[in-house]
This record gives sequence, structure tokens and C-alpha cells, in this order.
Amino acid sequence: MRQIAALSLLFTLPLSQGFAQQPASKTLPGYSAADSAKELDLEKRFRTIPEAARAHENMKFLAAHPHNVGSEAQRKNAEWMVKKYKEWGWDAKIEQFDVLYPTPKSQMVEMIAPTKYRLKLEETPLAEDPYTHETKTQLPGYNIYSADGDVTGPLIYVNYGMRDDYEELERLGISVKGAIVITRYGGGWRGLKPKLAYEHGAIGCIIYSDPADDGYAQDDVLPKGPMRPPQGVQRGSVSDTPVYSGDPLTPGEGSVPGVKRLKIAESQTIMKIPVLPIGYGDAEPLLKSLDGQVVPASWRGGLPFTYHVGTGTTKVHMDLKFNWDTKPVLDVIATMKGSSAPDQWVIRGNHYDGWVNGADDPISGQAGLLEEARALGELHKQGWSPKRTLIYAAWDGEEPGLLGSTEWAEAHQKELAEHAVLYVNSDESNRGFLNASGSYQAERVINDVARDVTDPETKASVWERQRAARAVHPRRNGAKAAEGDADIIPIGALGSGSDFQAFVDHLGVTSISLGFGGEDHSGTYHSAYDTPWFIEHFGDKDALYGKALADTAGTLVMRVADADLLPYDFRDLATTVAGYSQEVKGLVKQMQQAAEARQKDIDAGYYKLAADPTKTVKLPEALPNPPDFDFSGLDAAIGKLKKAADDLKAAEDSAGELDAKKAETINLQLAMAEHKFLNPAGLPRRPWVEHVLYAPGWYTGYGAKTMPGVTEAIEDGRFDEAKQQMVIVTNAVNAEAEHLEGIVKELGAQ
Amino acid sequence: MRQIAALSLLFTLPLSQGFAQQPASKTLPGYSAADSAKELDLEKRFRTIPEAARAHENMKFLAAHPHNVGSEAQRKNAEWMVKKYKEWGWDAKIEQFDVLYPTPKSQMVEMIAPTKYRLKLEETPLAEDPYTHETKTQLPGYNIYSADGDVTGPLIYVNYGMRDDYEELERLGISVKGAIVITRYGGGWRGLKPKLAYEHGAIGCIIYSDPADDGYAQDDVLPKGPMRPPQGVQRGSVSDTPVYSGDPLTPGEGSVPGVKRLKIAESQTIMKIPVLPIGYGDAEPLLKSLDGQVVPASWRGGLPFTYHVGTGTTKVHMDLKFNWDTKPVLDVIATMKGSSAPDQWVIRGNHYDGWVNGADDPISGQAGLLEEARALGELHKQGWSPKRTLIYAAWDGEEPGLLGSTEWAEAHQKELAEHAVLYVNSDESNRGFLNASGSYQAERVINDVARDVTDPETKASVWERQRAARAVHPRRNGAKAAEGDADIIPIGALGSGSDFQAFVDHLGVTSISLGFGGEDHSGTYHSAYDTPWFIEHFGDKDALYGKALADTAGTLVMRVADADLLPYDFRDLATTVAGYSQEVKGLVKQMQQAAEARQKDIDAGYYKLAADPTKTVKLPEALPNPPDFDFSGLDAAIGKLKKAADDLKAAEDSAGELDAKKAETINLQLAMAEHKFLNPAGLPRRPWVEHVLYAPGWYTGYGAKTMPGVTEAIEDGRFDEAKQQMVIVTNAVNAEAEHLEGIVKELGAQ
Repeated sequence: MRQIAALSLLFTLPLSQGFAQQPASKTLPGYSAADSAKELDLEKRFRTIPEAARAHENMKFLAAHPHNVGSEAQRKNAEWMVKKYKEWGWDAKIEQFDVLYPTPKSQMVEMIAPTKYRLKLEETPLAEDPYTHETKTQLPGYNIYSADGDVTGPLIYVNYGMRDDYEELERLGISVKGAIVITRYGGGWRGLKPKLAYEHGAIGCIIYSDPADDGYAQDDVLPKGPMRPPQGVQRGSVSDTPVYSGDPLTPGEGSVPGVKRLKIAESQTIMKIPVLPIGYGDAEPLLKSLDGQVVPASWRGGLPFTYHVGTGTTKVHMDLKFNWDTKPVLDVIATMKGSSAPDQWVIRGNHYDGWVNGADDPISGQAGLLEEARALGELHKQGWSPKRTLIYAAWDGEEPGLLGSTEWAEAHQKELAEHAVLYVNSDESNRGFLNASGSYQAERVINDVARDVTDPETKASVWERQRAARAVHPRRNGAKAAEGDADIIPIGALGSGSDFQAFVDHLGVTSISLGFGGEDHSGTYHSAYDTPWFIEHFGDKDALYGKALADTAGTLVMRVADADLLPYDFRDLATTVAGYSQEVKGLVKQMQQAAEARQKDIDAGYYKLAADPTKTVKLPEALPNPPDFDFSGLDAAIGKLKKAADDLKAAEDSAGELDAKKAETINLQLAMAEHKFLNPAGLPRRPWVEHVLYAPGWYTGYGAKTMPGVTEAIEDGRFDEAKQQMVIVTNAVNAEAEHLEGIVKELGAQ
Repeated sequence: MRQIAALSLLFTLPLSQGFAQQPASKTLPGYSAADSAKELDLEKRFRTIPEAARAHENMKFLAAHPHNVGSEAQRKNAEWMVKKYKEWGWDAKIEQFDVLYPTPKSQMVEMIAPTKYRLKLEETPLAEDPYTHETKTQLPGYNIYSADGDVTGPLIYVNYGMRDDYEELERLGISVKGAIVITRYGGGWRGLKPKLAYEHGAIGCIIYSDPADDGYAQDDVLPKGPMRPPQGVQRGSVSDTPVYSGDPLTPGEGSVPGVKRLKIAESQTIMKIPVLPIGYGDAEPLLKSLDGQVVPASWRGGLPFTYHVGTGTTKVHMDLKFNWDTKPVLDVIATMKGSSAPDQWVIRGNHYDGWVNGADDPISGQAGLLEEARALGELHKQGWSPKRTLIYAAWDGEEPGLLGSTEWAEAHQKELAEHAVLYVNSDESNRGFLNASGSYQAERVINDVARDVTDPETKASVWERQRAARAVHPRRNGAKAAEGDADIIPIGALGSGSDFQAFVDHLGVTSISLGFGGEDHSGTYHSAYDTPWFIEHFGDKDALYGKALADTAGTLVMRVADADLLPYDFRDLATTVAGYSQEVKGLVKQMQQAAEARQKDIDAGYYKLAADPTKTVKLPEALPNPPDFDFSGLDAAIGKLKKAADDLKAAEDSAGELDAKKAETINLQLAMAEHKFLNPAGLPRRPWVEHVLYAPGWYTGYGAKTMPGVTEAIEDGRFDEAKQQMVIVTNAVNAEAEHLEGIVKELGAQ
């Protein structure tokens, strides 16, 4: 009852005075009234501890030197963190996994026709930035898990190298068979570029950073401004992460001594062709020499000449050789044992390996996380212990393919299946607005937490600031127009690109990934210019958002770790799944309409008549036209899920105090609810990815696909497969509903 | 009845066989069945006569030398055309008007800080193009009707220099008061750029051609490709044409000897500040030197550096002096007397003055028109005479401000008010698709004609090709999504930018403007590179669309000139006016919703919360919120107009043969129906523009505003004025309805 009163009070406040924090007297979901007050007080005390200045110092220490996987600096960082955790009162250790970690042995690219140009492939230091001068320990620009290869072929420009770009090339009558493609960063995940190039017959792939995307077109380049200079290179993994993350040789198993390892040729995630990233300084002579058809308007970049697709007269020779070594990844694992439910684990992680210095990515996040851990340790020293066990992780090897987190999750998969209550992820974090994605039963608790955390720049809550940004710039902040002033800011679906993937996609651990950003931009991503100097000149100079991250994630961890009943609200899950069903229906409808409109225009001869007869362009062909699918089973299941979620909420509200054993059973059932969305057979053609509600898209990479088995089958015209996948999703939703009704019974039965 | 049968046949043809021409046996609107067959046969014979090769030769003759107003080549061209017309059997003469035609005396622009750079202001010849070497008789790059001025000030980049750009500048906290603005071509009519700059306090204006818009970003530049080279300059008028066209010193009167002329300072259309166009070669050092805030994303051009707005450290000195001379414009006027209704005039015009050689603009159109005139002369020699009198015009002085057509229309305004039945305009015409705009009662006849003309590239009708292009690329071809497969392709509303303006806006002559284009692009507009060499390399090499223009316009002229009853269908006018009313209602609704949404977000504090506190950006303010207007009077008038149009159609269909005198009365009434939309008081603040249905927009220039008095008042927040203007439009629509019912009575009374 007090909760309702508190909410009413909130609603009656005039909006213009809405900056006030929630009244301290509210009752938190999952807590008794008395415990709520204590918890809120504790959380408040917690948030007084993290210091921005200390986060900044952490950043300067961890990003002082290049510290990629296997480097000396990385081992020093790991050992330093173990020492720090111990000082702060945590148990801490390094868990090591031995992974395939290729590094360049030699890299050469040259244009051999119509003129000669040998690419420099050098990220020259900036006079202003001392960190960039430590070139000896820097990894050169490369794409890890590229194939070895010595290839020569005609050069073809393929824009972002995504699927629609290859459709456009087909329309233009251009094949990349036997060619080396040059593609620009952006438009989709980098690993898709060589994958699609290979699928279309290319023998090599060059990825460059176009100045239109993160160079001078956006803002001044380094050292005057934050954007990528001509020689700046975006490193990055091209392992086929949508299939599985982690060591390419040990899918599904931790890379520990004795594990069975695939041969390199057997791995599904290592690229089949050589691929290399370059800066636009090196790309300019190549692109300028291309001739033939002028590119479509959306393919134009920012270099000062006309972009052409290429006819084959420009020829390139690329020769890449790698050391295919095994290297250690060093996960730092710190533990604070739970007082009353030690077998329920709240896991919190952020990686700490960088491509070079990695001051922003990932250290801006890790620097905050460490302050969060220090503050929790401080509370612990003052006498507090979480009810549940906390596991704080600094993951190594995220950059090459989420290695540290995936190997740890795979190595501990049985324990995680029994004990993991929540995984909270972060990565780099910058000035601006909170952004969260994850499991929808946790949508409300992250909203509640965000209301209690103060934004360092405006002193409003981070929730209020996030909502303002989504209202004013909906597209930029991923908001739907219909979102309006809803009291709960929707979270996003998890795709890939950070360490949550094994937890959610493979193991079904309830997960949240969060971070701040949106006010600064930069062109140093994965380059040698992502240094503490850069942060101090163009980034979150004072690590204010390092503290904000610590405040937010730490409060979330405490809120979940201390609750009597896990504060998961499945009504939001049910609403979201209903939304997914609507999206799939919309997709079918939209594809049907597009196919019919296309067919009508083909039949009317419009494409032929509208085409320029002096140009040879392939006319548009018929589009796949999906049948009407039967959604009745899915919709019925969603109806059951909605009812079960409502029932559960009612049962929780009316439940009195639970005895400890009963509470443990129920909490584990709440935690494991996400497991019902795992299909042990996995998604089609990628058995490792078991989650049927969201996954990295086969052709979107980092970007999430929701109901991926169904959606991707429809999009790709595999309509029978779509029907089969719909049954699988329907069964999962039914299973989830039954699981929740089971909890309702347990709650009622006491 | 035969017409209906014919239409049914058309509808039952499978769409894929839709290339066939209309059956020859149809009855044309305004013709008896017997006359229809004769007319269609005549028109067919007509279309066998124009030859593409002759149009090409016309182009090479007329564009052989720079031939701007007052030049020797222009007089030669005029005399040559008079001679040709006479050879073809027409009466022909030159009508001369003496107009203010300033030309550059001296032009100097230099950057004086932070570095020195004196602009070259030279369009250097191309080795490949012999025409570009005739530099002595070329006018240099300039904007005619710029003010004289010697000014020095800070340089500020204002993007396209349109109204929303100045709103953005205000948001950024930047004023152009006392500054020289540099603005790029595009985004709106050039004359608005210095006008808006002046209104915002600027003391000078430089307009440059950005390579993103018509330079290397689009395609290769000359001589390799068709786009603008760095030194290419777009000349053009900056007289305030939306206020009135023609000689700036004689609004409303023909510039004939003895007419009262304004002083230059009294003219409303001459710019108040110096303005000069330059190429991107000259613009680059200026833009590169600008500092301060980085421009918004949509302001970025294609030069290879970061665009900044400027802080004042870049200073520019510009000194422009003009010879404010009076020069002759030489309109060539050819007449073929009507056989039975000589007092009804069908007027057909295309200008022939170029900024330099003007091979494309305007000679591509004039070259076709001359073939059309030759073919009509040929028919005349074979014994045919049009029922109505034909007046074929080659207008001089279009480029400086529609001088030749406006002065002629003003000089002949009394005769035009009594005799003009139709004005058919064209201008440059290129490969591609028919595009037509004009008076809506003529929408159906231009559709009918387009069905009978063969597209030279596809051999389909130009109507079928136009419809295909609009279906497949609706936005590019100005089609509405709702257009679908309608049997009538809607025509557009007339704004400004070619010689129809005085006819339609000032005198209410029923008008159509048409042309072909959409398949080629170029960056030679108004430069010294628009030459026959260019056409032969990058344009309509064989003048196929010169012939298509002659075929289309000539058929239209014949169809109207020979009809028993003018083939005007006011049902299309009524539908269109109803659409305008809907658009105004939509505008009001959309402004109300935008204002409310804005106010809500202001009240909620969202803009403040979402803003980056480290940047000083002005927060969005309240938007003008229009009241609910009373549309009942207008809607009732539109209902009356619809009924009158239906009644008229029925009366025409059931009318038997009319006696000659009655036919003359009725035809004159049909022709003069457009006059009812003239308001003798003119639009607010521009009395010369009398048409209340469409006009060039005060702040859109070439772009038409429909119901301009109402629409512009609402957009600008002058809501009382909008109400007054709504009454004026309502009265006009009522008057039109009554006028049509008057014709119905005349038809019934015989």
C-alpha cells in the first residue's frame, strides 16, 4: 500500500518540479517496508563512496601502456587489480584460459596497377600525445582471426560491404568473384564485411575508415579535434561471433588444459580470406584509382573525388601472415560471499583488455567498476554483507571475441545454471545518457535504480535525463515514437559486441548491460589514439561518468543482491514478447506488400520503362512473398504468459514473510526463468546460440534480432523453417508461463 | 459514347501490354467525332516532321557563341530566327524592350585574415572544349541585380542560407550582423540567399557551388565527367522575383519608350547588398580558414576538411561595381493567323538568351521549339491553318529575371486579357521523362496529348514512360504515394523560374509549362561550360528529346488551337483546389501538434535536461500555434465549384453543334476562367502577384506555394492575415463556380 501512495505522490508532482528524487519512504519491490528503508539508506551511503578522481586515476594506471591479450602490461594490470580487490576486502584471483590469439607476423598491401603504391600501415605518433609514442609494444592495425593469405586481384569498392550493398552491386552488374574488396567501416558489424565478401567470391578484404564516418566530416581530426586522423586504423575482431563467441577452437567449452580443441581449419568462426583494416590516408590512392561506374549516392564517402566501383584495372596485392599462437587470457575474479543466500550469484563484469592503450574502450568502464567494487568493499568493512554472493570480474580478451567472459562462462556453465541470478555488464562509458539493454523481467528494477542515481552534469536523476534525451532525440537514443512519457523507459534487446553474449545467448542467465554516452564523439575507436591524453582532452575529462556508472551498476547490484524476493517483474517481459509477435506480423505484412507492389510494377513494365536505356542496370526482380503464418498458437502462449506474470505479481504482493528455504527455492526459480527461452538445439546453423527471444543477427552482428529463428527465416525467405521456429518459440513462451504459474503455486502454498 | 468505349478497351488491356497507343477512333474532348479523326490524323502528320538532327543543328547555331542580353550574338540569333520563321511561312518580327541590365565593371574578393588569398574568379577554358576558349565575349561569373558595394567583414558560413539555416544559427548563438556570409548553392532559390542574409544584417554574400551538390561527389567533373569543375561558377539572377518578374524598374508596365521608370533605389527587386557567385576552387581557402563551432551534420559539404561556422577571425573584403546600363531585350514574335477564331491566341514560348553559350539552358528547349514551328509551318504550307491564332515566341532576357516574357506580357496585357487562350512554356529539355505543371483545367488535355506522343528511347508513349517513372521513383519525379495507377497523371503547380510567371501570376492566362528530363545530370548550369561540346559528350547528344519536346508541345498547341470547344476540364481544377484545402487543414493540424509537443517538452524540462551543459546552445522555444480556422466557407465554395465543373462537363457532352458566335463566346469564357483567381489587390506585400491559387513562395522562390496568401500567413504566424486571405480565396472559388455555371447556362440556352 505504501508503494502505491508513493507512486501517486510522484504522479501528482507538477512535471516542471520533477527533478526531485523518489521519496525515501517508498517500498521497494522484493523488499519489506522496513527492509526498503534500510536498503535505500545503504545504497545512498554506497553512492557517497565512489570518487570520480579515483576512477580517473584507475584509468590512467590501466591505460598507461598498450595492454592487449598476452602483453606484459596486461599481466601487470591483472595483478594490480587482484591486489586492489584484496585491499578492498574481497577474495580475488586470476583465472587463466589459453586461447588461440593470432598476431601479425608480416602485413603488406600494395597497389600494382594502374600505378604503384605501397601502403604505409603506420599509425604515426602525435607530438601532443605522449602515449602514442610507445610504438614498440603496440599491436599494429589488424583484424584478428583474418586468414593468412598472399592474394592479388582487381580491387572493387563495396561501400559498407553489407547484404544490401551486394544487392546493389548485382543490380550494377558487378561481381566480386576473384576480387579484393575495399569496404568502409560502418553500416554493420566489421566481421560481416569479410564474411559477406567471402560468400560472394572475393579473395581478400580491405576495411578502411572513411572520413565521412568518423573523420574530418564529423569534426576536426586529432590533434585539433577528436576525430580519426588519416593514418588512424580501427583494429578489431572478425571472428564470426554471431555463430559463437570465445576461443574459436573451443566452442561450448572453457579453454582449460586438456580440453579438446578444434583445428584452425575446422573452426566455424575464423575468416576464410585475408582481411586488413587501414586508415583513409592509405585508402585514398586506392579509391582514387578506381574507375568505371560512379557509386550510388548512399555509397559516397568524404574523400575529395568521385567514388567509383572499379572495373578491374586497379589491382592490389595483399600478403598477410600471422603467428597462430596460444596466449593466456587472465580474468580477474573477485568474490564477496553472500550472507544468507551464498549460492545465488550476482555477477558483474567489464573487460579490461584494450587493442592498444584502450583508455576509453574499455578502461573508462573498468575504471568506474573498480570504484564500485572499492565502495562495496568499504560498506563490507563497515559491516554490510550482501545477502547473495557478488562476483566481480575484469574480463580479458574481449576485443578478439569476448574470450575471457565466454571461456569463464563455459568453464563454469554448470554452476552458473544453478547459481547465477543476474549478470550486469558494462564496457566503455562516456558523458551523457544512461542506456540499458537486457532481460525484460529486469526492466523495472533498472528503471527504479536509475531514478535514484544522480546525473553528475545536471543533478537530475540519470533516469530523468535519459527520458528527456529519448523524448527530444528519439531516434538518436533508440526510443520509439510511441514511448511518450511512459513511466518505464524500455530497455533494448541484447545482441553482441560485449561480454554478456555467453551469459545470455548460450546460458540464459538473466542479464543487463548498461553504460553512459551520447554527448561526445570520437574517431579513436580501436586505434593507437585511444589514450588517457585523448580522454583528458576530448572525453569525460574528470571521469564524472565513471562515477555515474559505478553508482548505477553498484546500486543495481545491491538492489538485486539484497532483496528478499528477486525484483523481477515478468509483466514487462510479457509485454515485450507481445511486441515481438506484433513486429513479426508487421514484417510479414510489410514483405507481402512490398512483394505485391514490386510484382505489380514488374507486370506493368514500369521498371523497364523507367530505366535509362543507355545504361545497363539489372531491373528489379520479384521479392520473396511470405505466406500468412498462423500466429494463433504464439498469441495464445503470450496470453498465458501475460496472465502468469499478472498472477505472479499479485501472489508476490500478497505473500507474507517467506521462510528462508522457501525463499531460496522461489528466488532460484525467478532467476532461472530466463532458461525457459533456451532451445538446447540452438538456432538453425548455430547450435551454440540457444536463446530464442534475442540473439546477435546472422547478418547484423552486434545488432540484436528478436525472435531470431523466426525473423531471420522470414527475412531470408525460408518460410518452412520460420514455421518450425515459430513452434519452438511458442513452446518456450508456454514453458515460461507454466514456470511462472509454478512459482505462483509455491507462493500460495506456504 | 465512343470515347467511353475506347476508354473501356484501354482498361481491359492487360497492363503488361499497355504500351499500345490509344485507338485512333477515339473522340477528343472539344471535338466532334468526325473532327477528332481529322485532328488526330493531322497531329500524326505533324509529328512526322520535326527532326532530331535539325534540332541539334539549331542548338549548335544558337549556342555557338556567348549570347547573353545585349550581345552581338544574341542580335544575330534573333535575326536568324525571324528569317527562319519567315521561311517557314510565319509572320515574324522582333519586339524590343529596353531594360535595366547591369554587368560587372569590376569584381574583387580577397581574404585578408587570418591569411591572405585573392580569389581568382576565372572560369578557365577546357582544352577539350573549343567553345570555352571564347573568353572575350563571355560575361564573367556574377549575380545580376546584386548591389554595388565595397565591404569588409568577418566571414560566416550559413549553409544554404535558407530560413531554417538562420534558425539553426540562432540556436548556435551566432549572428551574421555586419558579416559577409558564405552560402552554398542549393536548398532553395539563389535570390533568397542574399535577401535572407540582408534581412539578418549581413553586409555581403558569397554564393559558391559545393562539390557535394553538383561537383565531384555526384560524378566525375569536367572534362572527364559532366559535373562542375573547381573553377565552375553558377551565374544567375538575384532579383526578388517572387515580388515581381521583369525589368526591376517597370513593374506592371512594358519597358517601352516613354514608360515611367523607377529609380534604382526605389526598385523592390534589386538586392541591397553585394553578392557574388564563385566556384569551389575559390571557396576552399575561405571555408578551410573558418573556425569555431563545427557545423550541424546537414550543413557539411564535400570539401575535404571539417566545416566550421566561423568566429570572426576570418575576414573578407569584397568590392563589386556594376555598369548600370539599359540594354535591349529582343523578343522574337512569330504569328500564324487563326482561320476561324483569329482573336483567340495560343501562345507558345521558350527563352533563347543564355548566361554564356547556354547550349542546354535554354537552347536545348528553343532548338526543339523551332522544329515545332517549322513543322507547323510545313502543315500550313500543305493547307492547314489552326482555328485559333498561334503566337510563337523566343524570349530574350529570361536569365536576368524573365525580362522578355514579362515585358511583352505587360506591354500586351489588355490584348492578353481578351485573347489569350493558353500559354505553353518550355525551357531547357533533356533526356528522360515528361514533366508538366500549370492550370488544372488543362491537366486532362496534356495527359491526352502525352498518350499520343512517342518516347524516342523506349517507343512507349511519353505518358506511359512518365507514369512508370513516377511509380518507380515517386519522390524523384514529384509523385504522391497515393497517385498509384490513376488514369490521369497529376500536373504540378506553377511557381517561378521560367517565362510563365507574368502570364499566370500577373495576368491569369491559362498556362502549361512542360519539359523532359531526369536521366542525365550535369554541373554546368549557368556556367561557361554549358556548350554544344558538353551536350555532345554528356547530354542529349542527338537531340532526341528536342524532337520529343516539339512533338509534345506542338500536339498540345494543335489540340487546343483546333478544338471546337476548348478542351478544358474543370473537374480536375475542383479536385485540386479541394486538395489544397486539405493541405492547409493539414498544415494547421501539424503546426498545432508540433507546437503542443514542443510546449510539453519545454514544460517537462526535457530540452534543458537533454542538452550538453558543456556547450552553449539556445534551447528550443515555443512554436507558433495556429487557432482552428473556419474552413466551412471555403469548403462550401469548393463544393459549388465541383458541382459547376460536373454540370459544365455534362452540358458540353450533351451540347450539339454550336453556331460560330456562340462558340466564340463560350470559348472565351472557358479561356478566361483562370482570371477569376486573380485578386486585383495582389498578395500581401506583393501587389503584382495576383493569383490566389498558386504563386512563387516568398521564401521558396522557384517553388510554388498553393493558396499562397493563406499558407504563407499561417506558416509565418500571421493568423489574422490568414483569415482575411481565406475570405479572398473563398470569394475567388465562388466566383469561379458562378462563372462556370454561367457557361452551363449559355450552353443550355442555345
